[in-house]
Amino acid sequence: MAEVFIAGIGQTPVGELWEISLRDLAVRAIVAARNEAGGLKPEAMFVGNMLAPLLSDQAHLGSLIADHAGMKGIEAAVIEAGGASGGAALRTGYMAVASGEVEVALVLGVEKFTDRVGPKVEAALSTATDSDYESVQGLTPTAQAALLMRRYMHEYQVSRVAFAGFPITAHTNGATNPQAMFHNLISLEAYEKAGMISDPVNLFDAAPIADGAAALLLTRWELLPKDAPLPPVRISGSSMANDRLALHDRPDPLEWMAVRLSVERACRQAAIRPQDVDLFELFDAYSIFAVLTLEAAGFAERGQGWKMTEDGQISLAGKLPMATFGGLKARGHPGGATGVYQAVEAVLQLRGLAGKNQVAGARRAMIQCLGGPAATAVTHVLERV
Amino acid sequence: MAEVFIAGIGQTPVGELWEISLRDLAVRAIVAARNEAGGLKPEAMFVGNMLAPLLSDQAHLGSLIADHAGMKGIEAAVIEAGGASGGAALRTGYMAVASGEVEVALVLGVEKFTDRVGPKVEAALSTATDSDYESVQGLTPTAQAALLMRRYMHEYQVSRVAFAGFPITAHTNGATNPQAMFHNLISLEAYEKAGMISDPVNLFDAAPIADGAAALLLTRWELLPKDAPLPPVRISGSSMANDRLALHDRPDPLEWMAVRLSVERACRQAAIRPQDVDLFELFDAYSIFAVLTLEAAGFAERGQGWKMTEDGQISLAGKLPMATFGGLKARGHPGGATGVYQAVEAVLQLRGLAGKNQVAGARRAMIQCLGGPAATAVTHVLERV
Repeated sequence: MAEVFIAGIGQTPVGELWEISLRDLAVRAIVAARNEAGGLKPEAMFVGNMLAPLLSDQAHLGSLIADHAGMKGIEAAVIEAGGASGGAALRTGYMAVASGEVEVALVLGVEKFTDRVGPKVEAALSTATDSDYESVQGLTPTAQAALLMRRYMHEYQVSRVAFAGFPITAHTNGATNPQAMFHNLISLEAYEKAGMISDPVNLFDAAPIADGAAALLLTRWELLPKDAPLPPVRISGSSMANDRLALHDRPDPLEWMAVRLSVERACRQAAIRPQDVDLFELFDAYSIFAVLTLEAAGFAERGQGWKMTEDGQISLAGKLPMATFGGLKARGHPGGATGVYQAVEAVLQLRGLAGKNQVAGARRAMIQCLGGPAATAVTHVLERV
Repeated sequence: MAEVFIAGIGQTPVGELWEISLRDLAVRAIVAARNEAGGLKPEAMFVGNMLAPLLSDQAHLGSLIADHAGMKGIEAAVIEAGGASGGAALRTGYMAVASGEVEVALVLGVEKFTDRVGPKVEAALSTATDSDYESVQGLTPTAQAALLMRRYMHEYQVSRVAFAGFPITAHTNGATNPQAMFHNLISLEAYEKAGMISDPVNLFDAAPIADGAAALLLTRWELLPKDAPLPPVRISGSSMANDRLALHDRPDPLEWMAVRLSVERACRQAAIRPQDVDLFELFDAYSIFAVLTLEAAGFAERGQGWKMTEDGQISLAGKLPMATFGGLKARGHPGGATGVYQAVEAVLQLRGLAGKNQVAGARRAMIQCLGGPAATAVTHVLERV
């Protein structure tokens, strides 16, 4: 199987981008990625997107965007796996290049969430839950997070403030990321006073939905432009796993099997232990998601994940830097684009071009995105060449 | 690159299946395919689906169906490319196995179109067109077909009756397919009297939307069960191409570039000419689609495609059998499942198990599905081992 490399990256700012259409957002990210990759011409495009059919009345984004970007005749399709769509698109592009069927693949994540207002978006996001048994009862993704957080607090006897370190760290890093949605800092006091979204999930425990697009150009070693100004990054591990979709079907909702399986598989492929990575871009859609992910991925014992915010462990200079450009919480969460933003940010870290957000000496990164409450988990390991 | 084989197939009847849920439909097809494939356990599932988020309030079908089918922990995602979603899912499964990343892949097509009524479905189907420039003006897929058919009739000075042979042949073959939606025959007289859907597209020129699910199990040669009761089929060509999405952006709307490109690529890979196939399951969503496909694929000169209905050329005993189990027109068109049904039917032909629908001595089949008016085309060549 051919080794696969990321030869170019592109991203747009993340935020409420009402003045830019979905197709224009996509093209901006594509052009940026292609400009970096010295003339590599994509033969295929894999688009990570969650909700364009519901929020923009637009399916068939593969053809739409290939057309608008001037990539006539290439193959193009949408990959959807709830919030994990961007990671699933990266995995599909990876397999396409690894198979030899495709020499140069473009992986695009694009999402426009904010053109529509609240209830419409919440209903659309709820299509990633089990419609017949969960969302039909009014169980939205945020309500699921609340159930999980409440259960965790009960099971391990921790208070809400145990979660504060995650959004505080995310906002600290987002403040210096020019592409991030939020640049403000959060104090512990502000966290404690924040209004409830779905008790005990407060305003700062939930990542904001957003608009944005990010792109990656993948190819094999021998096709990398020798005179490229920026070094390529190798994908040394790639995996995807599912869990039971409905929370009520899981024997233990605090054990995130899909996260565990996908980290195990990606690490086995990369021949590393989780502890060998220099940073971990995880899926902090909710503070409780960060905690449960750290435990399932093997970075903390069960019931101990929240302690990783102590002593700066997850800060840029810590043992396991997280949300290094703000994560979903402060960079923003543009749905199917999120997984591709994670890859773009990891590449910046591994190239040593992360500016004020740089993790010193980063050589290996893990990125992971989730669909639903980890009903799908996609994990990649990226390494400096 | 590893060669990829189809080791098992499954399908449900096609029709208005109001009493079976989307997940149950999917599981029936999966169980049938797995029962054929002697204990092969899928590691991944690629789901072709167009409109579940819009018509069933359900996205994230990968996790939902893997869960409901008891395939805990496997990887699973939805592949969407308008009406070509089923073919795109097959292509993704093919690349996954060819890459070596996945040993056994399940390709599923599933769609429930008929739980909702007319205008809602038409609006949903229109999301596969260019929403900002086409569907916003009321240009539905059927209206696009009408524009193309009118243009063709004008350009080549043919009358409506030139198209009659396609639905007549489809219904002839559907009549003996127990899974087909329609078992009635159509006479030329009935065709001539049929009511207009969108002039000049009449009732019999448009395939019915339907519910259904079909599944394939893919693997490499060395993993094929040696004691399997049924022979495997080899995928010798696989390709996908796009064209400009909006009809008004194409220099010549009667030249279907995506069809031409994808047939050229699939045939090059299979080392054959189009004329070397023993049957062609094409995307007869509308009669005019069949005509333009035959011309772009190289089976007929421009303006001559309609003549292939003469002298029984496209009948089961003809030079190029088409719609051998009824095609989209008579088997029915269950959206993202259609491309997988085409593969299931081609496998039945190549195994010599097509019963009354058998194409004598079939050794090689071409299947093709389209998104929009051939804005996406996915072509596969399948061969008897």
